[in-house]
Amino acid sequence: MELFLPIEPPRPGRPRRVQLESALRDAVRTGRLAAGQRLPASRVLAEDLGVSRRLVVEVYTQLTAEGYLISRTGSGTRVSDLPLPPVTTAPAPPRTFERAVRWDLRPGLPTLSGFPRRFWKRAWTAAMDAAADSDLEYPDPAGHPRLRRVLAGYLGRVRGVDADPQRLLICAGFTQGLHVLAHTLRARGARTVAIEDPGLPHRAPILRQAGLTVLPVPVDADGVLVDQLPERGVDAVLTTPAHQFPTGAIMAPARREAVLAWAGRCGAVVVEDDYDGEFRFDRRAVGCLQGRAPDRVVYLGSASKTLAPAVRLGWMVSPAELHAELVPNKFLADHGSPAIDQLALAHLIEVGDYDRHIRAARNRYRSARQALEQAIARHNAPLRLVGTPAGVQTLAAQLDDTHPDQLTARARAVGIAFDSITRYQLNPDANPHGVVIGYGNISPHAIDEAIALLATLTFR
Amino acid sequence: MELFLPIEPPRPGRPRRVQLESALRDAVRTGRLAAGQRLPASRVLAEDLGVSRRLVVEVYTQLTAEGYLISRTGSGTRVSDLPLPPVTTAPAPPRTFERAVRWDLRPGLPTLSGFPRRFWKRAWTAAMDAAADSDLEYPDPAGHPRLRRVLAGYLGRVRGVDADPQRLLICAGFTQGLHVLAHTLRARGARTVAIEDPGLPHRAPILRQAGLTVLPVPVDADGVLVDQLPERGVDAVLTTPAHQFPTGAIMAPARREAVLAWAGRCGAVVVEDDYDGEFRFDRRAVGCLQGRAPDRVVYLGSASKTLAPAVRLGWMVSPAELHAELVPNKFLADHGSPAIDQLALAHLIEVGDYDRHIRAARNRYRSARQALEQAIARHNAPLRLVGTPAGVQTLAAQLDDTHPDQLTARARAVGIAFDSITRYQLNPDANPHGVVIGYGNISPHAIDEAIALLATLTFR
Repeated sequence: MELFLPIEPPRPGRPRRVQLESALRDAVRTGRLAAGQRLPASRVLAEDLGVSRRLVVEVYTQLTAEGYLISRTGSGTRVSDLPLPPVTTAPAPPRTFERAVRWDLRPGLPTLSGFPRRFWKRAWTAAMDAAADSDLEYPDPAGHPRLRRVLAGYLGRVRGVDADPQRLLICAGFTQGLHVLAHTLRARGARTVAIEDPGLPHRAPILRQAGLTVLPVPVDADGVLVDQLPERGVDAVLTTPAHQFPTGAIMAPARREAVLAWAGRCGAVVVEDDYDGEFRFDRRAVGCLQGRAPDRVVYLGSASKTLAPAVRLGWMVSPAELHAELVPNKFLADHGSPAIDQLALAHLIEVGDYDRHIRAARNRYRSARQALEQAIARHNAPLRLVGTPAGVQTLAAQLDDTHPDQLTARARAVGIAFDSITRYQLNPDANPHGVVIGYGNISPHAIDEAIALLATLTFR
Repeated sequence: MELFLPIEPPRPGRPRRVQLESALRDAVRTGRLAAGQRLPASRVLAEDLGVSRRLVVEVYTQLTAEGYLISRTGSGTRVSDLPLPPVTTAPAPPRTFERAVRWDLRPGLPTLSGFPRRFWKRAWTAAMDAAADSDLEYPDPAGHPRLRRVLAGYLGRVRGVDADPQRLLICAGFTQGLHVLAHTLRARGARTVAIEDPGLPHRAPILRQAGLTVLPVPVDADGVLVDQLPERGVDAVLTTPAHQFPTGAIMAPARREAVLAWAGRCGAVVVEDDYDGEFRFDRRAVGCLQGRAPDRVVYLGSASKTLAPAVRLGWMVSPAELHAELVPNKFLADHGSPAIDQLALAHLIEVGDYDRHIRAARNRYRSARQALEQAIARHNAPLRLVGTPAGVQTLAAQLDDTHPDQLTARARAVGIAFDSITRYQLNPDANPHGVVIGYGNISPHAIDEAIALLATLTFR
C-alpha cells in the first residue's frame, strides 16, 4: 500500500518519532486511512521513510495503545473502527428521478441490456493483447491510424460517406466533435450557426460556449426549412438529414439539393449529424448528405446509439482544409482519444461483430416500434406516431388537448418517463405538440404495460 | 455485412435492377467495397432492399460477368481484385522521426513496456463484468461516482490531497482538465494566468485558446519565483510543486507558504499540476500543496505517468464553488469520460494493483536514474544531472559550451532522442542551458550505450 506521511528531518521538539505518530493520527482522524485498512509492514514503512524498523514498531505500539490501530498476530496492523466522523462528509448524490422511473421511454437510449458485452470484451481484449508498446504512448490526436482506416471503410460501405482516413477525426462522441468543430469554426471567423428547431438537446449551449450565435430554423415533414436560411450572415447549418430529431422526418431529395446549393452560394458549412443513420426499418437506405458534397459537408457520427453512450467514441469526416484545423484543436481539448478503446472498435468492425450487432439491434428496434404502435391502438391511447419508422425514438402527436408538459408530468408521477417536445424547442412561441417516446431501452411487454397505464391517465 | 446501396423506387429508365447494378459497380470502383470482401447472400440482400431474390441473383451474375465480382460455389460472391485504383489514395502518415530513434531518452514517458497489461486487463474485464446496464448510459459528467470515491481515498492516502468525491472531476488526462479549467476561469472573468518558465509544453496554447493571457514566471532551485508574481492582474498560477518540470526543483516550504499567501492576498487560484508526484526516490514524501489550502488550490493529476498516456484518465480536485462551474463545462466538452475505463481504474486501485504497480515502477525509475548517473561518470560525458531525484526525466546541465539545440540535433542524427531545454522555454531571452533527458522508457543497458555514444559526439 502506498501511503503519504509527511515526515521532515528531525529538529528539536520534532523528532521523527513524534512526527510519524502525529502524521498517522491525523491520517486516521481525517479518514485518509479508512477503518479496517491494513498498514504497511513495519519493515516496509521503515525502508520507505528511511527510519529504523524499531522506530516504526514503537509508533505502531503507541497508536495501538491509543486505540487508533489494532494489532493482531498474523494479520498485521490495521486501522481500528473508532467512531470518528471523517472531516468531509459527502452527501449521497440525489438520485430521486432515477428511482422513480419504472417504464423507461426516454428518447435517445439504445437497448442498454442489449449491449454486445461478449463482442466488446473480446474486441477489447484482442486489442490490448495486440497493442504495441508504442500504442500506449500519447495517442495520435486525429485518432489511431488503424481505427481511421477501418472506420473509413465502414462509413463508405454502410452510410455512403466519402471517407478518407486522412480527413477522419476520432473524438469522444458527438459532443466532443461538435465542441471541437465549434471552436474551430469560431477561430476561422464564423459567428452564426443555424440549428434545427425542434432538435437534439445540448447543441445550442455547446455552440454558444464557443462564442457562436445560434439561429433556430423550423423543420417540416421534409426536414429543415432551407428557404428560411438567410442568404447572408450564417456560417453553418447543423442538421439531421437521415432522421430528424425528434420529428422523424427524412430530408427529402429536393431539400438535400437545396441545402447544398445554399451552402455553395453562401460559402457555408453543412454539419450532418448522422446520429442514428444505421437504424432505418423500412428497407430504403438513404445515404448521407456528405457523400454528395464532401467539400461542403462535415459528417458526424458516434457509437452512442450503435453500441452504448458510455463508450464515448465518435467520428467526424471533414473537408481537408477544415480537418487540418480541427486536429490541433482536438489536441488542445484532450490530446487524443484512449488508444485501446479505439483499437477495440477497429477490431469489432474488422471481425464483423459490429455489423452483426447492428443488424440484431435494428430488428429489435423494429419490433419495439411495432409494439408501441400496437399498444397505442389496443389501449386507445390518444397518440399518433409521426415520421419515418427508424431509430430508437419517435414523435407522438397528441390527439387530445392536454399540454405535452402536463402529460409528461402525469406519466412521470406514475413511473413512466418520456419527454415533452418542449424540451427540444428553442423558439418559445412554437406551438407545442406531442411527446417524444423512446423504445430503445424497454421490452415490448413493458411498452404495452406503460401505454395501457398511460391511456387511463389521458382519458381522466 | 451491412452495406449501403442507394436504391430508389423504380421509375421509367431506372428500374431497380439497373439501380442495383450501378450502385454495386460504384461501390467496387470507389473502393467502398474492398477487393476480397464477401457480399451478402442474395436472400439477405433481397430482404434488406425489399426486392426479389431472383433480381439480386441476376445482378450478381451480371457483375460477375463484367469482372467486378467473383462467384465460387460454396464460398459465395466476393469482390474481385481488379487493378482499379480507389478514388481517394491516402498517403501513409509520415513516421520518419519515429523511425530514426534508436535510443528513446525523450522526457515525459513512463516505461511503456512496463505497462501493467495483466493488471489492467483483469481490472477492465472485472469492470465490464460487474457494470450495471445503467453504467452503459451517458456517464455522469463529473465522473463515475465509484471512481470518484475510490480515487478520493487514494489521493488522500498517497498524496495528502483533501479530496472529497463531491469536488473531484474525472477528465481525459491533464490536458482536458486544464482545457475545461481554462474555459471556466475565463467565463468567471479571469484574464491572465502565470505559468512556470521553463515548464511543461502545451500549457500556453491551451490557456490562450480559452482567451487567457499567459505570463511566464521564472523558476529557481526552490521552485517558481513567487516574488515575481504581480500583486494585481494575475488570476491564477499554474505550478508543479512536487517536481518542477524540467528543472527537478521541489518547491521549498517557504515558497509554498509564499504562493498560498500571494493567492490569498490577490484572490487568485493556485493550479497544482502533480504530474509525477508518485515518483520520488529519496524517501522523503512531500505532500501536495492542495492539502494545505483546499479552498485556494486546484489539484490536477493523471494516469499518464503512473499507467500510460494512452489511458487518457485524469482528475481534478477543486474548491466546491469552482467545481460546480467545472462540471457543466466538462459536460459541454465531451459529456463525460468513458465509463468502463473509469470503473477499471477504480477496480485497479481497490484491489491494490495500482499501488503494487507504482511501487515497482518507482524502483525501476530509481535504477534507471542511477544508470544514467553512472553512465555519465563512466563515459565522461560533459553533463551534470540537476534537481531532486524523482520522476521519469531530469534536466542535465551541460559542462561544455555546445548550444543545447546543437547537442540535441547531433544526438538525433545518430539515433538518440532527447530534448533541448529551449523546447520548454517561453522567454526568448532566457539563457538556454542544458538538455532534458527521460529515463522512463529505456533500459539501463541502452542508457549506457546512448551516453557512451553521446560522449564521443560532445567531445568532437
